[in-house]
Amino acid sequence: MTDMTGFPDHLISAVLDAAFAEDLGLAGDITTNAIIPADCASRAVIAARAPGRIAGLPIAEAAFRRLDPALEFNIAIPDGADAEAGATVAEISGNTRAMLTAERIALNFLSHLSGIATDTRAFAQAIEGTSARICCTRKTTPGLRGLEKYAVRMGGGVNHRFGLFDAVLIKDNHVAAAGGIGPAIELARRGAGHLVKIEVEVDRLEQLEEALRFNIDAALLDNMSLDELRKAVKMASGRVILEASGGMTLDTARPIAETGVDLISSGALTHSSHALDLGLDFVS
Amino acid sequence: MTDMTGFPDHLISAVLDAAFAEDLGLAGDITTNAIIPADCASRAVIAARAPGRIAGLPIAEAAFRRLDPALEFNIAIPDGADAEAGATVAEISGNTRAMLTAERIALNFLSHLSGIATDTRAFAQAIEGTSARICCTRKTTPGLRGLEKYAVRMGGGVNHRFGLFDAVLIKDNHVAAAGGIGPAIELARRGAGHLVKIEVEVDRLEQLEEALRFNIDAALLDNMSLDELRKAVKMASGRVILEASGGMTLDTARPIAETGVDLISSGALTHSSHALDLGLDFVS
Amino acid sequence: MTDMTGFPDHLISAVLDAAFAEDLGLAGDITTNAIIPADCASRAVIAARAPGRIAGLPIAEAAFRRLDPALEFNIAIPDGADAEAGATVAEISGNTRAMLTAERIALNFLSHLSGIATDTRAFAQAIEGTSARICCTRKTTPGLRGLEKYAVRMGGGVNHRFGLFDAVLIKDNHVAAAGGIGPAIELARRGAGHLVKIEVEVDRLEQLEEALRFNIDAALLDNMSLDELRKAVKMASGRVILEASGGMTLDTARPIAETGVDLISSGALTHSSHALDLGLDFVS
Amino acid sequence: MTDMTGFPDHLISAVLDAAFAEDLGLAGDITTNAIIPADCASRAVIAARAPGRIAGLPIAEAAFRRLDPALEFNIAIPDGADAEAGATVAEISGNTRAMLTAERIALNFLSHLSGIATDTRAFAQAIEGTSARICCTRKTTPGLRGLEKYAVRMGGGVNHRFGLFDAVLIKDNHVAAAGGIGPAIELARRGAGHLVKIEVEVDRLEQLEEALRFNIDAALLDNMSLDELRKAVKMASGRVILEASGGMTLDTARPIAETGVDLISSGALTHSSHALDLGLDFVS
Amino acid sequence: MTDMTGFPDHLISAVLDAAFAEDLGLAGDITTNAIIPADCASRAVIAARAPGRIAGLPIAEAAFRRLDPALEFNIAIPDGADAEAGATVAEISGNTRAMLTAERIALNFLSHLSGIATDTRAFAQAIEGTSARICCTRKTTPGLRGLEKYAVRMGGGVNHRFGLFDAVLIKDNHVAAAGGIGPAIELARRGAGHLVKIEVEVDRLEQLEEALRFNIDAALLDNMSLDELRKAVKMASGRVILEASGGMTLDTARPIAETGVDLISSGALTHSSHALDLGLDFVS
Amino acid sequence: MTDMTGFPDHLISAVLDAAFAEDLGLAGDITTNAIIPADCASRAVIAARAPGRIAGLPIAEAAFRRLDPALEFNIAIPDGADAEAGATVAEISGNTRAMLTAERIALNFLSHLSGIATDTRAFAQAIEGTSARICCTRKTTPGLRGLEKYAVRMGGGVNHRFGLFDAVLIKDNHVAAAGGIGPAIELARRGAGHLVKIEVEVDRLEQLEEALRFNIDAALLDNMSLDELRKAVKMASGRVILEASGGMTLDTARPIAETGVDLISSGALTHSSHALDLGLDFVS
Repeated sequence: MTDMTGFPDHLISAVLDAAFAEDLGLAGDITTNAIIPADCASRAVIAARAPGRIAGLPIAEAAFRRLDPALEFNIAIPDGADAEAGATVAEISGNTRAMLTAERIALNFLSHLSGIATDTRAFAQAIEGTSARICCTRKTTPGLRGLEKYAVRMGGGVNHRFGLFDAVLIKDNHVAAAGGIGPAIELARRGAGHLVKIEVEVDRLEQLEEALRFNIDAALLDNMSLDELRKAVKMASGRVILEASGGMTLDTARPIAETGVDLISSGALTHSSHALDLGLDFVS
Repeated sequence: MTDMTGFPDHLISAVLDAAFAEDLGLAGDITTNAIIPADCASRAVIAARAPGRIAGLPIAEAAFRRLDPALEFNIAIPDGADAEAGATVAEISGNTRAMLTAERIALNFLSHLSGIATDTRAFAQAIEGTSARICCTRKTTPGLRGLEKYAVRMGGGVNHRFGLFDAVLIKDNHVAAAGGIGPAIELARRGAGHLVKIEVEVDRLEQLEEALRFNIDAALLDNMSLDELRKAVKMASGRVILEASGGMTLDTARPIAETGVDLISSGALTHSSHALDLGLDFVS
Repeated sequence: MTDMTGFPDHLISAVLDAAFAEDLGLAGDITTNAIIPADCASRAVIAARAPGRIAGLPIAEAAFRRLDPALEFNIAIPDGADAEAGATVAEISGNTRAMLTAERIALNFLSHLSGIATDTRAFAQAIEGTSARICCTRKTTPGLRGLEKYAVRMGGGVNHRFGLFDAVLIKDNHVAAAGGIGPAIELARRGAGHLVKIEVEVDRLEQLEEALRFNIDAALLDNMSLDELRKAVKMASGRVILEASGGMTLDTARPIAETGVDLISSGALTHSSHALDLGLDFVS
Repeated sequence: MTDMTGFPDHLISAVLDAAFAEDLGLAGDITTNAIIPADCASRAVIAARAPGRIAGLPIAEAAFRRLDPALEFNIAIPDGADAEAGATVAEISGNTRAMLTAERIALNFLSHLSGIATDTRAFAQAIEGTSARICCTRKTTPGLRGLEKYAVRMGGGVNHRFGLFDAVLIKDNHVAAAGGIGPAIELARRGAGHLVKIEVEVDRLEQLEEALRFNIDAALLDNMSLDELRKAVKMASGRVILEASGGMTLDTARPIAETGVDLISSGALTHSSHALDLGLDFVS
Repeated sequence: MTDMTGFPDHLISAVLDAAFAEDLGLAGDITTNAIIPADCASRAVIAARAPGRIAGLPIAEAAFRRLDPALEFNIAIPDGADAEAGATVAEISGNTRAMLTAERIALNFLSHLSGIATDTRAFAQAIEGTSARICCTRKTTPGLRGLEKYAVRMGGGVNHRFGLFDAVLIKDNHVAAAGGIGPAIELARRGAGHLVKIEVEVDRLEQLEEALRFNIDAALLDNMSLDELRKAVKMASGRVILEASGGMTLDTARPIAETGVDLISSGALTHSSHALDLGLDFVS
Repeated sequence: MTDMTGFPDHLISAVLDAAFAEDLGLAGDITTNAIIPADCASRAVIAARAPGRIAGLPIAEAAFRRLDPALEFNIAIPDGADAEAGATVAEISGNTRAMLTAERIALNFLSHLSGIATDTRAFAQAIEGTSARICCTRKTTPGLRGLEKYAVRMGGGVNHRFGLFDAVLIKDNHVAAAGGIGPAIELARRGAGHLVKIEVEVDRLEQLEEALRFNIDAALLDNMSLDELRKAVKMASGRVILEASGGMTLDTARPIAETGVDLISSGALTHSSHALDLGLDFVS
């Protein structure tokens, strides 16, 4: 099981604040409040209209609970599990106004995160049996990074660094400014704490060779051919983690994974995911 | 030209706060700060790596300016215009650390919003020449609704309501609770101010017929066949705005538009858009 | 019944944050904390010292509950109902420190909102039997608009637009910039979504005539004489909503209402209301 | 001159944040943005439509500057000075969109604060020549206390405590809990720092007599008759500050002031003030 | 007992927000979440590893409860009481993850505040039997002033003013700008409300003599010799509160207190306190 | 030079917000505003009253600039350099009110951070010439962690992890829950991303031996004797980073450093530092 942290509960409050503020404005849900009696109660199911990997139920639950703290939210298919089309993901019962008003907010989060998990799962399945794993990037939706990184884990992927602060990643402009890969690594090591790892981005094997002469933790192999990747794996011979990157698709992922790299990273997992189609069906 | 508001500048500060907080953490850009001298200056271009409609340059500019208030940001292809693959969208020059540290944040916004504009443009072109227009929904990314609605306008689309507060949209559950379409409309009208429009969602022509007996402003025709849509257009005969909705694709959009409906709405414009591939290239 | 939304619960938290911050500072209620034992309990009533329409009990209750979550708050005269002088509006019992410390915050909200409701009720009664309704404006107290709009509804009034974002209101400067009423309306319609209504402010009948040639939703008749208002009603003949505005008083409201206009709007309802005199009396 | 602090600049940012958020929502000023060209410039004057004491120009200026940092704002009648009806209070020139969009926010603050200053001035003039001064209370508009206290000073009044934290005010419930005025004062003195003053509220002369036996700083005489007030002045003989309170009107203020009390306090100054009628007139 | 306010509960939420944000980031406690099962429960004690005065248990409890609302927190040695080395201060039982993740935040607050209380207690004991009391300053840790002032009270000290807003303290630069002690006092009195006390800082007896000619409330005697302090006490003869200040140590405090001054103030109490060594020991 | 990041500018705004809010309250600096004319200008120097290492000038400068954006702030002894007693650290000139009002806030930050830098420098000097470096912990002042970690770097120290999120640190409770050091490491590795390092805390050599059998990055040697530390260094033979911890003092640090460990960590650097005595002297 790949889950590192469980749902990042500490992030829920701020993102729900933003979501409710933009959907309720000053006047609130004027349709529901005008039509639905305040004490009306209902039951409903969150149903998958397409097959996919579920992620985000805790924030969906929190969205409904914000308007009805006593609302019951029973999960049938938990985060990290797969739903078939038509499957009931969760059953909820509580105040009708709360359910109608929070419906879109809850589903926007759940569909978005489940979409990322579903796309990640597809990549994970494509490379199953190899030693490689699928990995996300910092190309996330602004404001939702912590949640999206979680969704990647729910899809069977692993997380790259969370921000600019938790690992060193030396790119070409850093190398140019430092006057070479070696000096750049040296500068980074001098500045970084002892618990910070250092990864270097390279796009040619000569660069990898140079980087390997310094004590780095990982190398990002940018847009290399299958042949180059295989050579890189040999050169590194297990001393550093190798991450292949660049225009990854479901088709190209497996041959790349079979070169022996450790990680395959894809920005599209988070910047171009397809929302999983989920709906709220009221039960009479 | 379809732009209603220009860029929503008043929304920039809060979303950049969130984006910088999640990318900088406490330690900041430890790679750049360790390697790049504090007073180093650079020039770079934001380049389109794929063709698309640009949206979001004001927030990209604000991201860079937050770290270097004196940075120059010269726009070559403004929001609402089209970039070919390889085109220079903007040229920037300023502090190198600022450019490297803000790069991903700026591009994450710009790619996301340009992706929405590009997808919207495709739909707008698909229905060109008809009287219909492409329209977004409330299926937006939590926290980014105001920016995404702007991106839809930049793509040639129009905006549906911004939240639950600025228009009444009566759905099946509202109708069920009120005991019919008529009572629901009456309740809504009694509650709503005189500047609030009322739209009713229907999925059968009998429902539309009933709704038209009341003084509504718009009807959302949910998942109707082309034949039903044509009949609906006749029934409404211009008295109310007709919005067709449900599983819209680039292929289905045109025949639907040709039925005579006023609006074609699609949640996928905002919940499943593809980021436009844009990069920052340093110029020596 | 004129209530559209019930109390806007989602606005409570932020305004209470501001109110408690400014009243407690760092040190808190130094009088009460020095004198009243921490575990002391009391009962008290919120009493009307003058007759009026009640509005704001949910936020008064929330103010007390913030300091004593278990405090009992029993409402005798709910929001939207009338209290005579001396009447008990609510009975509360709970921690004495909580009651004394939150007393002024709770009463400041309740007196302010009940004052607005009471003033609105007076206008509503003055025009009773006509087809007109009393309406508020954007001349609200900064930071309290959503609550004040609610208080207007509790007084029997209706709400004008909530902000600059939810309806178009074309004023003289817009007309001047556009080069005429017609061009201004055209520009607005092109920019606005299909669920946004358009109102035009006019101060002469010729302007109304011109505006009526375009498909507007409402006209604001600014400072017109009774005779002009009657003519305006004839000219519009029910096609658009007519709102009379300008220096409204309890004396002038009825004759204006009798001209047949739909709405009478008054900024004084919210910018110059008299607080309703309410007090907290401890019960031994 | 009675001004203690000048305008509380440090409070501007937070209240403007709230005001702009509630007026702009997500979409902004859809009327102005659709009709007024982005680069249009204008000149306008803020004019008094009724006579009054001005207060709040710094926040009005800040409101306009938030949308156009280069806007010129030239003050003709500064805070604390009097405007006749028709007088020009300030001239502004800058971006037209900025002026139209910020107009209502700027005027809402300026009218509200000038209304408080004007009402305070009326009281101050009513008691001119006596040794008494007019004083505000904690019955302020939630969220605006610091600004309203400033407006009272601009009207020639003085400030009571700013919150529950900066002075001890012992009321009847405190006395009852402590078992007498003396024990309550003793408890308060033991808890309070050496720079905190102690005021005791009394409604009978016997209570004042008891309170004077302890070393208090001030006494609040609640709803006493003129005769009682005169006796209280004799009893205190200058040892403590005497504050008369309770249902103060312009008519009752002078005879009360002539009893020799030091302060006359009125909650209505801040909870029931009349907004000063101010408008923005564009100059061609 | 010297406690004025009990714990400032209203300050907890904001400081915990900051503390959790900086310790959890986006990813949370990655060690605990990877290793400890989500439903694991534990018992532990907060133990004093050194003797000291306890302060801050309410915020430590709130830190744990934020992650496990049902966690039991039983206090053995409450705030304001003394713990010997090895003593159990509190026993807690609840979710293991919550306890491990919140441990450092809870202890950081508790150790810091108990350190201040312990240092204050040492000063209070050093001057026991004299009429003087130990007093803090505004030299507090940014963001924690309200909590640190509370810790001083828990140590047996009293609080100086909480900020620049709640008392006047005239220093040499104020005197220089006003052209003398007298004019400075007059200006301050004219501006300050009737519930604001005035203290003047002097470093020579002549200055004190001058200040005493005006009606001030307190004098801060800066870096005076014991002899000067004794003379100052005679000069003031009980009319004003005398505060001795300047490089106070445990050794110099008693002789200074014995001169008859009312207060001995020390910035080191809050700016250079030693954290009390407290630990969390899990109980099997 | 050991600086990794330069000053964390992105953290300034939030901590200054908190500092100004608690020092200015609603009323602001009532002493200065009553006495000092608004347009008065002054010059002053920030002087070291004791020798020490400077850290925090950027936030001191920002504090003054918040009240006077045009204030000149000329640094004589920059962050990371040493000041002798009596030395001028910076010269400032600008608005007098701004300088007096911001003085305490600026100095509170500067003294606190310089105190940490000075204490760190003392440790760094104590172990100079060995291969060990001094290192901080998570025992920081709540809300100031990012600034305090910077101050440690300015003193010549290095940073441990910034929070629970950026590195794995396995402690005894984690080991107990996992059923052994090996299983705990395995669980952590499975959960953590490829750029996250893993450190294990051990207090006996057998534990270190076990931990070394797994591929860890660092070991924290808790309270080991010099002899044990020497053996640990031999056991690890450079394969993992060794951090010695536990009750570090200036006396014990050097012999510990001479055992060959890589890091010596001390919580007291941040939780019990002595503020560096710095003052603001006005220059006539």
